[in-house]
Amino acid sequence: MDDITRKLARMIVETRPADIPATALHAARRSIVNWFGCVLGGCRDDSVQALLAALGPFSGPAQASVLGTGQRVDPMLAALANALSGNILDFDDTHADMVLHPAGPVAAALVAIAESRKLHGRDLLHAFVLGVEVEARILDPRVADYKFAWSPTTTVGAFGAAAAVGTVLGLNAAQMSWALGIAASQACGLRETGGSMAKAYNAGHASRCGLVAAMLAAHEFTGPERALEGPNGFLAAFGSPLDPGMIVRDWSRDWHVTRNTFKAFPCGIVTHPAVDAALQLKRTHRFDAEAIDTVALKVHPVALRLTGRRSPSSPLEAKLSVFHCVAAALVYGRLGVPEFSLTCIQDPRVLSLRDGMRGEQVDTMPIDAACVEVRLRDGTALRLDLDHAIGSASRPMSDADLSEKVSSLAHGVLTQQRCEALLERLWAMETLEDSGDLAKLAIP
Amino acid sequence: MDDITRKLARMIVETRPADIPATALHAARRSIVNWFGCVLGGCRDDSVQALLAALGPFSGPAQASVLGTGQRVDPMLAALANALSGNILDFDDTHADMVLHPAGPVAAALVAIAESRKLHGRDLLHAFVLGVEVEARILDPRVADYKFAWSPTTTVGAFGAAAAVGTVLGLNAAQMSWALGIAASQACGLRETGGSMAKAYNAGHASRCGLVAAMLAAHEFTGPERALEGPNGFLAAFGSPLDPGMIVRDWSRDWHVTRNTFKAFPCGIVTHPAVDAALQLKRTHRFDAEAIDTVALKVHPVALRLTGRRSPSSPLEAKLSVFHCVAAALVYGRLGVPEFSLTCIQDPRVLSLRDGMRGEQVDTMPIDAACVEVRLRDGTALRLDLDHAIGSASRPMSDADLSEKVSSLAHGVLTQQRCEALLERLWAMETLEDSGDLAKLAIP
Repeated sequence: MDDITRKLARMIVETRPADIPATALHAARRSIVNWFGCVLGGCRDDSVQALLAALGPFSGPAQASVLGTGQRVDPMLAALANALSGNILDFDDTHADMVLHPAGPVAAALVAIAESRKLHGRDLLHAFVLGVEVEARILDPRVADYKFAWSPTTTVGAFGAAAAVGTVLGLNAAQMSWALGIAASQACGLRETGGSMAKAYNAGHASRCGLVAAMLAAHEFTGPERALEGPNGFLAAFGSPLDPGMIVRDWSRDWHVTRNTFKAFPCGIVTHPAVDAALQLKRTHRFDAEAIDTVALKVHPVALRLTGRRSPSSPLEAKLSVFHCVAAALVYGRLGVPEFSLTCIQDPRVLSLRDGMRGEQVDTMPIDAACVEVRLRDGTALRLDLDHAIGSASRPMSDADLSEKVSSLAHGVLTQQRCEALLERLWAMETLEDSGDLAKLAIP
Repeated sequence: MDDITRKLARMIVETRPADIPATALHAARRSIVNWFGCVLGGCRDDSVQALLAALGPFSGPAQASVLGTGQRVDPMLAALANALSGNILDFDDTHADMVLHPAGPVAAALVAIAESRKLHGRDLLHAFVLGVEVEARILDPRVADYKFAWSPTTTVGAFGAAAAVGTVLGLNAAQMSWALGIAASQACGLRETGGSMAKAYNAGHASRCGLVAAMLAAHEFTGPERALEGPNGFLAAFGSPLDPGMIVRDWSRDWHVTRNTFKAFPCGIVTHPAVDAALQLKRTHRFDAEAIDTVALKVHPVALRLTGRRSPSSPLEAKLSVFHCVAAALVYGRLGVPEFSLTCIQDPRVLSLRDGMRGEQVDTMPIDAACVEVRLRDGTALRLDLDHAIGSASRPMSDADLSEKVSSLAHGVLTQQRCEALLERLWAMETLEDSGDLAKLAIP
């Protein structure tokens, strides 16, 4: 394929809002709703404070909100800060077919410029769908094997932001191709950053780089002609879909955004089936933690391999301990961000359940399934076999679930009333004359 | 090697100005002098105007100069703009042993913060030496084969800027290691950008990213612990020196900055031996272009392979045509930026010499050598066999040559008087109480 970059650019600029079906638009809305929740949940992290302390003094005109805070900064810094916040809790969206969290870099860039441009909500949604589409199409799906040092969300995130912002800015095809080219040469992000603040910074950096790339291209700043397919281009450097021609296949009916999924629990995705089963047992049978005698899990082998940690000592470790996750779910009847605090990690009731819990790997069990058995002290035996965890592609979170997730994450940041107003606008964003209203509602 | 990143960080923060020998400091001065010249020569390019038009409106407080212009912007944008300017003409420094232009990203970041920090010239020089050292040490030398899609200057540039700025900010060892880690995750730059504005943008982007990384680390924004050597770190992603342990070998006696070389002519480096020989013939024998009958070159095969283009049609192509370069040198008796203008490329005297010129490749000729034979219409045969081109490691440009290069590049941007004042300060920069004076002299 000789002309991928230019063809892709042309496809982006030639797609009209009416070309995108309602299913894709609704999937986009759900992705953006989920992203706002993640941002509100992450915005009080130390890393956001450190970022604003370091770079805030160099901000340009205050045209955009740092969501969840009272601060206003320039759009580039806002995109950086908000995409960073949205990634901190590892609670963001996941494409069902690849290790990619597509929403953050795209949504952050769009929301950052919405406030100063009076961007119609319909146009924001349209641009978001295109940005996500570009990210997913150019990613080498082998990243799922984690064979590369790259952090996939970051490498393609700048492309998504550039395509989305470029759409909003009305770039012509040549400019769009430059924007993609400038983004290509800024593609970066190492997985080695995991466990440090630099990991969530990657998502922010990608968003900022894409936003800048589109703005440069709008001012006739040129990029390479063959940024993707050229011999020293993005696909050569970062790996390529097996058939690069698929990057420019017709997209009128099948949009990647519809494959986006949302986590119900802020912990390793392989723990979710067991957590979900435990919560269902707890809700159905309403037992107290003290009434529990023993707990036994049957899970897919990879669940124990990745999250078989017995005694987590930090929130980050607890997210990767299926034993903590299930114990906390059984004790509290829920598993949100607070259930990963040190208080909960050290709660004697959690410790008692966690340490006595049996974990068995079942090679024939699908990765999306789990079995949880709870024996109560009175002899009652409870058991739940779960086929698909909530939040998976087969059993997606409902819109109401997503709203509840946002409310829960916004707790302590926004008043309940304000959060409800935000959610109402988010679900109806295509009717908003000025999508900048979303950001204005997402600050205390 | 398990602990490279932390060791390197410790070496950087433990090196004192007094530890760096005078030879290295002088080499650093020469590198910075050359870089100022390149910036002044490049600053009027359309790409700088486009950059400032796109991003200037979002600049923070105006604390730093866009060199060669009247504009003042925030230090991050200044670092970006100035490193971009310095790379535009392909006239910047080259490490003698690898394809690396180390000065730009480091110098641009330091100069950008010098104006707002009252940075002593001695400390600027010290930090510059360390920044260049880090860049050269972590680069996979196989980039010289151009086997990678990466643009080497960009991939390591952010590390250099981070190390240098981190030194100025007085980071402790842990913070320095975070700064390197944040820079690592922003390492990028594709060679596919060649021929577009995005190519020089890469150098600017690296400078900005490194500057930001150091500022973040100063505010306790954490990075990964093993950014270089970790399994998903920089060396795994971008290639590694054969023995990564060399990255942290003692550097007290042998500094990479002393291997930096400077181009005498703004064109492909493999054309330089023939150009130099032609200019020497012209200066010695003072013939007119009209007096020339025939010209014949003997050059290393790679010179014809890379620059054997007969009929260049643009300045960029002319830089990669040894025939244009030698013809212009013989016609004008000099070969600077103006000799690559369309006027000169289409000058009938240049065309006539260029089209009749013979080019012969000699397999046994060293890459740094050339032979030029000029036969005049009166029958005189002139010949010069050159062993080492001016600007090579074996025959470096003198300090006076460098000053002349800067004056020539600054022509039309700074008055002669101002340029002389700038050069005087540059050559004595270690005595400057406030190295911000350098930037203030480098504007019209």
